[in-house]
Amino acid sequence: MSTAFQPTLPLAPFGDAALRERVQAALDAKTKPLGALGRLEALALQLALIQRRELPRLLQPQLVVFAADHGIAAQGVSAYPAAVTPQMVLNFLAGGAAVTVLARQHGIAVTVADCGVAGEFDAHPQLRRLKVDGAEHGTADSSRGPALTAAQCEAAIANGRRLVASLPGNVLLLGEMGIANTSAAALLMARLTGEPLTLCVGRGTGLDDAGLAHKREVLQRALAVNAEADAPLQALAALGGLEIASLAGAVQQAGSQGRVIVVDGFITTAAVAVAAALQPALLTRCVFSHCSQETGHARWLQHLGAAPLLDLQLRLGEGSGAALAWPLLESACRVLAEMASFESAGVSRRSP
Amino acid sequence: MSTAFQPTLPLAPFGDAALRERVQAALDAKTKPLGALGRLEALALQLALIQRRELPRLLQPQLVVFAADHGIAAQGVSAYPAAVTPQMVLNFLAGGAAVTVLARQHGIAVTVADCGVAGEFDAHPQLRRLKVDGAEHGTADSSRGPALTAAQCEAAIANGRRLVASLPGNVLLLGEMGIANTSAAALLMARLTGEPLTLCVGRGTGLDDAGLAHKREVLQRALAVNAEADAPLQALAALGGLEIASLAGAVQQAGSQGRVIVVDGFITTAAVAVAAALQPALLTRCVFSHCSQETGHARWLQHLGAAPLLDLQLRLGEGSGAALAWPLLESACRVLAEMASFESAGVSRRSP
Repeated sequence: MSTAFQPTLPLAPFGDAALRERVQAALDAKTKPLGALGRLEALALQLALIQRRELPRLLQPQLVVFAADHGIAAQGVSAYPAAVTPQMVLNFLAGGAAVTVLARQHGIAVTVADCGVAGEFDAHPQLRRLKVDGAEHGTADSSRGPALTAAQCEAAIANGRRLVASLPGNVLLLGEMGIANTSAAALLMARLTGEPLTLCVGRGTGLDDAGLAHKREVLQRALAVNAEADAPLQALAALGGLEIASLAGAVQQAGSQGRVIVVDGFITTAAVAVAAALQPALLTRCVFSHCSQETGHARWLQHLGAAPLLDLQLRLGEGSGAALAWPLLESACRVLAEMASFESAGVSRRSP
Repeated sequence: MSTAFQPTLPLAPFGDAALRERVQAALDAKTKPLGALGRLEALALQLALIQRRELPRLLQPQLVVFAADHGIAAQGVSAYPAAVTPQMVLNFLAGGAAVTVLARQHGIAVTVADCGVAGEFDAHPQLRRLKVDGAEHGTADSSRGPALTAAQCEAAIANGRRLVASLPGNVLLLGEMGIANTSAAALLMARLTGEPLTLCVGRGTGLDDAGLAHKREVLQRALAVNAEADAPLQALAALGGLEIASLAGAVQQAGSQGRVIVVDGFITTAAVAVAAALQPALLTRCVFSHCSQETGHARWLQHLGAAPLLDLQLRLGEGSGAALAWPLLESACRVLAEMASFESAGVSRRSP
């Protein structure tokens, strides 16, 4: 696997300046003051450029919840026990989790990817087994050494690519589950951005002050133990997680196919940041759905030059923010496709 | 009309402390960290309290575009000619305006209320004629005297009440159209909040710097000419507009029936502010959909203690922001109705 592994995939082409001009002209001709639909207009333009169509259309949206466990959970960095990861997988499959409720509301298909959950599951039409040899039940503890070997990390990336390649539609919404994965994401943020760890580490699922102090201390050790892992994929293997690696691969595959990528919160941003460190143009294919309440997310989005659509003080992950923002993408397409122009509606333009 | 006019209507009861506790307990038992759905949880609780049900349900949502013209438009306070108001009424009825596109996306019924548009329209199933005697084609110019007489203002309020009473469903989404109505709203903001006019006056549909300076000067005259109109309904008549008065009546009627009220941007906030000045508890029945880019809106929302759901740099009005936020209300209801609890899903609670 490792010898054939390509760190990036070729990106699908993006719309050119001529298309940009045509779409902007179409937006400006709609019956509304120039720019009056604000962020929705920028979103419509972005979708058109990703799809290289004047009228973008969103087909069979796919939300994938990438799930895995983390060895560092044993250090007590989460408010919840690691047993919650497999329990939540079953909750996703039963349709009772937030993201599955929201996806059902909007007609978004949900797939759960077991990238290394500490458990084994019965077959289910929405479940894909993407476990990696030697890390079937999660990563090693990154506070004591690398979370993954390079080969395991590459296998997880390849799994994410293959999964996306097998899915229909032209939109990928990113989701995740994994007790302690805000730790992995915070470590990646610190390593990739150079920000001090305290600005990267938050309360996750709800640590108290003592828990937060302990988490910081554990993560400081993880950074020290893995001090030499500074290239993006090295950092991903040493500090990240199986679901984050598979997410990074999924983002690459989506970018190579011209799919629209809808980013969720802190964890999925970690995966996007790794992929974008290798291939910055991937960011133009990403719609950032929301700014999470988790410490670090707002700052990381700034590093990426990303402007999130929503700010609803969410801190759940799963893909819940991506699902909540979904109707805005549909609205953006409808504005282009369905709004009348000044000419077609016989509405006067602005006074000279 | 004037003698029988009641300035307020009795409010439908709001959920009590016991219901609040039950709904909060239900939210806290859902499979997610405490409070992890952020603003969506607060919204779910508010909807439950408005409807006095543990499981709120949104039935037959009605968006009304209240439309009227403004005498002050003759002073050149808008970037668009007044002819656009009747032209946009036809665009709403044809389904080509932003708000009608967005309402169609979400299955929201749209009614257009002609509260005093400078034009006459053929009958249409979505159009209601709510013109007021002596102001059939709009208000008088408030920079030269009161926009409306007290009797006209009361008639417009009564029209808004009657219209809402005739509509099905349990949710009212507020919309509006009227060239120069950011002027009327800015005047009301200055008068009701005491803020300096410069903080209340914005570019509306897109004035340039010279246009903005001229608008400020005209509005300063309007405030001076109507200096004695300081009680809420006096201010509404002297400085407001027919669509704003009908909106205020619509808000009162919705509040009296226990309907959820979804507020749009700067103009509909003006109507809510007038109604809330008479009856502050109306605010608890209002969901503020978004913060507009129009100067003054953010500050006015602060005055009202309102936390808007979206901030998408919209400045279109029509009800477009209310329609864009609509799926979040549906999501809030679904979280309560469809998410599993820790117990039902067999998910472990947080570590002790």
